[in-house]
Amino acid sequence: MKDIKSYIKNNKDRFIEELIDLLKIPSISADPAYKKDVIKTAETIKLSLEKVGCDKVEICETPGYPIVYGEKIIDSKLPTVLVYGHYDVQPADPIELWTSPPFEPVVKKTEIHPEGAIFARGACDDKGQMYMHVKALEYMTETNQLPCNVKFMIEGEEEVGSESLSWFVTRNQEKLANDVILISDTGMISNTQPSITTGLRGLSYVEVEVTGPNRDLHSGLYGGAVANPINILTKMIASLHDENNHITIPGFYDNVEELSKVERAEMAKAPFSLDNYKKALDIEAVYGEVGYTTNERNSIRPTLDVNGIWGGYTGEGAKTVIASKAFAKISMRLVPNQDWKEITELFKKHFETIAPKGVTVNVKPHHGGQGYVTPIDNTGYLAANKAYTKTFGVPAIPQRSGGSIPIVALFEKELKSKIILMGFGLNSDAIHSPNEHFGIFNYLKGIETIPLFYQYFTEMSSK
Amino acid sequence: MKDIKSYIKNNKDRFIEELIDLLKIPSISADPAYKKDVIKTAETIKLSLEKVGCDKVEICETPGYPIVYGEKIIDSKLPTVLVYGHYDVQPADPIELWTSPPFEPVVKKTEIHPEGAIFARGACDDKGQMYMHVKALEYMTETNQLPCNVKFMIEGEEEVGSESLSWFVTRNQEKLANDVILISDTGMISNTQPSITTGLRGLSYVEVEVTGPNRDLHSGLYGGAVANPINILTKMIASLHDENNHITIPGFYDNVEELSKVERAEMAKAPFSLDNYKKALDIEAVYGEVGYTTNERNSIRPTLDVNGIWGGYTGEGAKTVIASKAFAKISMRLVPNQDWKEITELFKKHFETIAPKGVTVNVKPHHGGQGYVTPIDNTGYLAANKAYTKTFGVPAIPQRSGGSIPIVALFEKELKSKIILMGFGLNSDAIHSPNEHFGIFNYLKGIETIPLFYQYFTEMSSK
Repeated sequence: MKDIKSYIKNNKDRFIEELIDLLKIPSISADPAYKKDVIKTAETIKLSLEKVGCDKVEICETPGYPIVYGEKIIDSKLPTVLVYGHYDVQPADPIELWTSPPFEPVVKKTEIHPEGAIFARGACDDKGQMYMHVKALEYMTETNQLPCNVKFMIEGEEEVGSESLSWFVTRNQEKLANDVILISDTGMISNTQPSITTGLRGLSYVEVEVTGPNRDLHSGLYGGAVANPINILTKMIASLHDENNHITIPGFYDNVEELSKVERAEMAKAPFSLDNYKKALDIEAVYGEVGYTTNERNSIRPTLDVNGIWGGYTGEGAKTVIASKAFAKISMRLVPNQDWKEITELFKKHFETIAPKGVTVNVKPHHGGQGYVTPIDNTGYLAANKAYTKTFGVPAIPQRSGGSIPIVALFEKELKSKIILMGFGLNSDAIHSPNEHFGIFNYLKGIETIPLFYQYFTEMSSK
Repeated sequence: MKDIKSYIKNNKDRFIEELIDLLKIPSISADPAYKKDVIKTAETIKLSLEKVGCDKVEICETPGYPIVYGEKIIDSKLPTVLVYGHYDVQPADPIELWTSPPFEPVVKKTEIHPEGAIFARGACDDKGQMYMHVKALEYMTETNQLPCNVKFMIEGEEEVGSESLSWFVTRNQEKLANDVILISDTGMISNTQPSITTGLRGLSYVEVEVTGPNRDLHSGLYGGAVANPINILTKMIASLHDENNHITIPGFYDNVEELSKVERAEMAKAPFSLDNYKKALDIEAVYGEVGYTTNERNSIRPTLDVNGIWGGYTGEGAKTVIASKAFAKISMRLVPNQDWKEITELFKKHFETIAPKGVTVNVKPHHGGQGYVTPIDNTGYLAANKAYTKTFGVPAIPQRSGGSIPIVALFEKELKSKIILMGFGLNSDAIHSPNEHFGIFNYLKGIETIPLFYQYFTEMSSK
């Protein structure tokens, strides 16, 4: 790819400005209040794809938020890369912890990002990483170096389970036909050590409701005599882990893939400092399943975490009340071979079983997805690794991520092609947290690396 | 007391209108947003005391909300009754469960209140019950039948711990000198079976904060590898009760007064239907400390209840986050001999002890108060019982209440007189809950019974 460095240098400021404009739209898919903004973001993506030379761009309606589809087919005999990304973002709360407003992007320098990073919700997950692909295409079309066909599929429900995307993919196999699927929605080890995500965890996300008395009660007149839904909920949740932090749901581990000593030894080679990890989070000790390292706990092992809990009086001061209801949002991260629908059922059954008399329980499944593992000997992986090696000067390390992209397993099933997870974010980028950011270095490095993937993948495929 | 029935009959509508006007002011002491309304309520009480013939009425400033003091001294040789009540109310949430707005009082008929009940926050606790005393005084002054001296002390912080009242009482023993303290801030068994509360539970109210990582984390990237503050909080709270629902805080039961078989048998005589109790609350089973009946669990036994819990994402939809912090409001109801400050210390120490490495815990004591038990052979009790017997046709039953009026123990200590708890509310009046109400029958019956107490207490005291 000729002159890519100079092209990026000359257009750097505009690349950043365009991304900042995109980040200003609060496309929070979880909250209906932002519906207009989510739609507006889809339209903005459509225009950006047209601008960089896609021949055909359309906003495809679905039962939920639309999917932006774009393509540039230069020669049907050439391979086709399908780029997937999402234009929706996580909710921004707790707002008060943001040092600058989540939807007023600003560039700030940090220790890890001396060249500056863009601070905004969605900067890294996934608007920034998705937009790298748009700008990479711009470079290839502007300089007439696009070596193959390209398709874009950008959705607006990734943060809430990608239901409409499943609906869309199963109905459009032909339209989406491709030779490799390229996704930048994961991270890498560091700005000096790139890595490619070869595994993702599955997800089951549920909401539970515990109901006791038919109304809030005075804790003095009824305290001690009726089941307090909040106390009961804490007992029930606490019982979901045993003293070794194993999950106690019957059958939960039945299909969990146990890694061999060799595989675990391979994993352990990834550079990792427990001290830095603890220091970065400001914690005295890590905590998790007995018998596994921190890197194993958050990648090859399934987990159960409460993501939110609420009930009773949570305002200023004191209210001596026994609430009628208590609630929690609970997510389970799953590993390959655990079926998320089956796990959701096991959870529901178990949670209903452990409810004591005096309360009723309602378990509402939210969404989920399967885990995924990709082999490291396929053309896509080799091309990606070659691209990283060229732009970073060192080969990428294959890594299992603890995160979930529920749709990935479905892609392979429906579209019969391999998925390559070329992530350019860092764990410290605080995705899903206040002060999410994306390094300028990472953003531009992505734009520089992606065209090389196109080139190498095309060359290797033609062999 | 001559013509009291006809006086009430002739003024019934005005009595109700005046109370409704008082209930329209949202005097929520727990929430600073209502400061103006709390003050305005104090001023309204002041005017009402002046109107019914108090010679001296003043709004006494304190470090917190003011105390309305009023007196009518007719003869220093006659006994003096000190009436205590409060003009502040509990927060109204959850607002959405009110069938009519909490501060737009309406009269509705119910099964238990065929003559109608006033629905509004504070209707029973305590504006309605406090205002009975104002109207009772009106009757006695208007008909020149006031048999003794009377003092009023109406505070605005009962729902948040009465701190300023303690401050006021300890500084005004002389001003508040009295022969008996009369309080209507409790309930009775039913409209056909009056009861006098002879015991109150103490209270310790704390707020706990569990902090894990220094920021919210992505539950995929960190799930299973760090202590999740919400999961930890549920484990810690769950551990505060053992399998018999005994509280596990070391030393918690050390000073708990164990009642004799005889006393427990006496208590058991009070009419009670477990079926009706369960039906009223719409629960399949009661729940509580093994070895005690429902009436014992909520009166003579100490308890620990979570009044509120919150942490993480509680909005619409799903957010896969590990929150940095989780919170709970916890109250303990205490029985006589348990010192609330000591119990608060025991809780704090224990809660900090059980926190695992990886989180830090902050326990913030909110407020509290001692329990109280009154003998049933003192003049005040006998006079009250005689008054109930006259107006209800049956003698009152002495009862231990599960509720707390933290200030009562202090009254006895500082003012050296007995406290008589003449309550006219019912448990079903939903105090502290949505749709709080106070029966018209109960309101007027209180106005009818109180003057008789004045008469009998004066007669019995002069003997």
